[in-house]
Amino acid sequence: MRRILRDLPGPDLTAQTEVVRRQAELTKPPGSLGRLEELAEWLAAWQGRAHPKVEHPRIAVFAGTHGVARRGVSAYPPEVTMQMVKNFVDGGAAINQLASAIDADLRIYELDLAHPTEDFTQAPAMNEARASHAMAYGMMAAESGVDVLCLGEMGIANTTSAAALCAALFGGTGADWAGPGTGVTGPALANKIAVIDEALARHKDAIAAHDPLILLAAVGGEELAAIAGAVLAARVGRIPVLLDGYVSTAAAAVLYAFDRHALDHCRVAHRSAEPGHRRLIEAIGQRPLLEMDMRLGEGSGAALAVPILKAAAACHNGMATFASAGVSGKV
Amino acid sequence: MRRILRDLPGPDLTAQTEVVRRQAELTKPPGSLGRLEELAEWLAAWQGRAHPKVEHPRIAVFAGTHGVARRGVSAYPPEVTMQMVKNFVDGGAAINQLASAIDADLRIYELDLAHPTEDFTQAPAMNEARASHAMAYGMMAAESGVDVLCLGEMGIANTTSAAALCAALFGGTGADWAGPGTGVTGPALANKIAVIDEALARHKDAIAAHDPLILLAAVGGEELAAIAGAVLAARVGRIPVLLDGYVSTAAAAVLYAFDRHALDHCRVAHRSAEPGHRRLIEAIGQRPLLEMDMRLGEGSGAALAVPILKAAAACHNGMATFASAGVSGKV
Repeated sequence: MRRILRDLPGPDLTAQTEVVRRQAELTKPPGSLGRLEELAEWLAAWQGRAHPKVEHPRIAVFAGTHGVARRGVSAYPPEVTMQMVKNFVDGGAAINQLASAIDADLRIYELDLAHPTEDFTQAPAMNEARASHAMAYGMMAAESGVDVLCLGEMGIANTTSAAALCAALFGGTGADWAGPGTGVTGPALANKIAVIDEALARHKDAIAAHDPLILLAAVGGEELAAIAGAVLAARVGRIPVLLDGYVSTAAAAVLYAFDRHALDHCRVAHRSAEPGHRRLIEAIGQRPLLEMDMRLGEGSGAALAVPILKAAAACHNGMATFASAGVSGKV
Repeated sequence: MRRILRDLPGPDLTAQTEVVRRQAELTKPPGSLGRLEELAEWLAAWQGRAHPKVEHPRIAVFAGTHGVARRGVSAYPPEVTMQMVKNFVDGGAAINQLASAIDADLRIYELDLAHPTEDFTQAPAMNEARASHAMAYGMMAAESGVDVLCLGEMGIANTTSAAALCAALFGGTGADWAGPGTGVTGPALANKIAVIDEALARHKDAIAAHDPLILLAAVGGEELAAIAGAVLAARVGRIPVLLDGYVSTAAAAVLYAFDRHALDHCRVAHRSAEPGHRRLIEAIGQRPLLEMDMRLGEGSGAALAVPILKAAAACHNGMATFASAGVSGKV
């Protein structure tokens, strides 16, 4: 993983330049498609083609189980992770409906659900081998033929993991990064914050050493490691990525902490209602595409942004030029 | 029109209540789908059914020509309106690509393009008969079978008309409501502002009389009147409406000025980069669904929001309940 991270491919500047040139000729006032124009450039730069395509989006949902769930940090019991995986397979979850609505390929990637990670207030969540294995597993999602990859997750207690990871990577305390998650409030939220602070104290030496991959193993989870792996593989495979919510973005932020250009092929699709997500998005210098007050995970926010990318590609590829349509230019 | 406005049908509270009840049973933490939940309620309330549908969206683009275009208020010459209508018919415009991407029915409604409205700095843009005729024409767009109606427009100089109309309805001056439109800046923008102020002075008695329909005739345009008519007809026909950008929202605001519940079946789809749109959205108490820095019109922002409504309906109708999926509830 470190080797890949040290040799990340860059954008295709030829394709990007070609997009900019064509945008100026299309039948619209310059710049009037706003972010759709920027997204067409971005898709072209990272797909490596002047006519970007969004025909085969994939939604990859990674599910993991967390030892820290025993600490009462979620509004739901730990078994909900496996129950929701069954719900995904049966087609009953929100992400199933969203995948169907946008005609995306939905894949559920189960990590080692029967063996939760360690309670990371007591020990590293995973050893480095387990984290590497999970990253490698996640890389499978970036298959050839996929043209946009949406990365989501399911894992009771994983906003606790995300908050601890953000604090470890970017500084701050539990109170800075924790939020209600599935809906914990009052004393339960105070407990969640205390658990995160306990973890930060437990791993203070690792935090001081600033190695993002070691911090991922220390306070992350298998599904977070898998998402980081998928982001890396997508970069190498020239697949633009839509990050979903707080957990998905926190997982990707591990790579950002390693190289601040590591997420240039990613866009945060939706700003979650989870307050830590706003802080995290600022830390990695992104502007989300949507803000719909959602806080579900599962890739739901990423799926919702796919039609925007389709629209950007469709306008760019399909519009007439001023010359071809016989439309007068500016006076 | 006035008769319809005085007797607007309200929301279907039974359908809305049924949606709220079902939302609580679906396999997700309460409220975690955020605005998608609110949109499912809204669709149900205004479609009058507990399982809302977004299967037959229509994009209606109204085109009109403006006498005030002769005053140099646009970056493009007046003939671009008719050239762009041809481009719509030929399938080369942005809205054609967007309609295709979301599988919507796109209809172009041409007002009396060969006869521009009067230059409203000199006289009312239209007499009341012409405005009423345009409104009645616009009502055709709200046909039975359409389940969501997107309202867009094309008309060189129509952001000048929109700005004058907003100032007439809500107060303020040309400088408060004018913006670059297709791209006027510097002295050209100063001229646009001066033209609007000239119109406001010309129609000061009508403005003081506070009759929204008379103000629509005074400084509006045929496509704006048609949009107002379409909004009204959609209300009667139980079709939720997505308003597009500045011009489309300004047209609808005429009805809001008449009755502040007249736009309850409408959502502003996208906040335009045109600065007056932000002020207008605040004036009518809405929160836009998207903010993509677009400023094109044509219904482009409304089209972009249709997949969000589809997603809201799909999640609401298709998700499993905790009981049916065997997922545990909160601890």
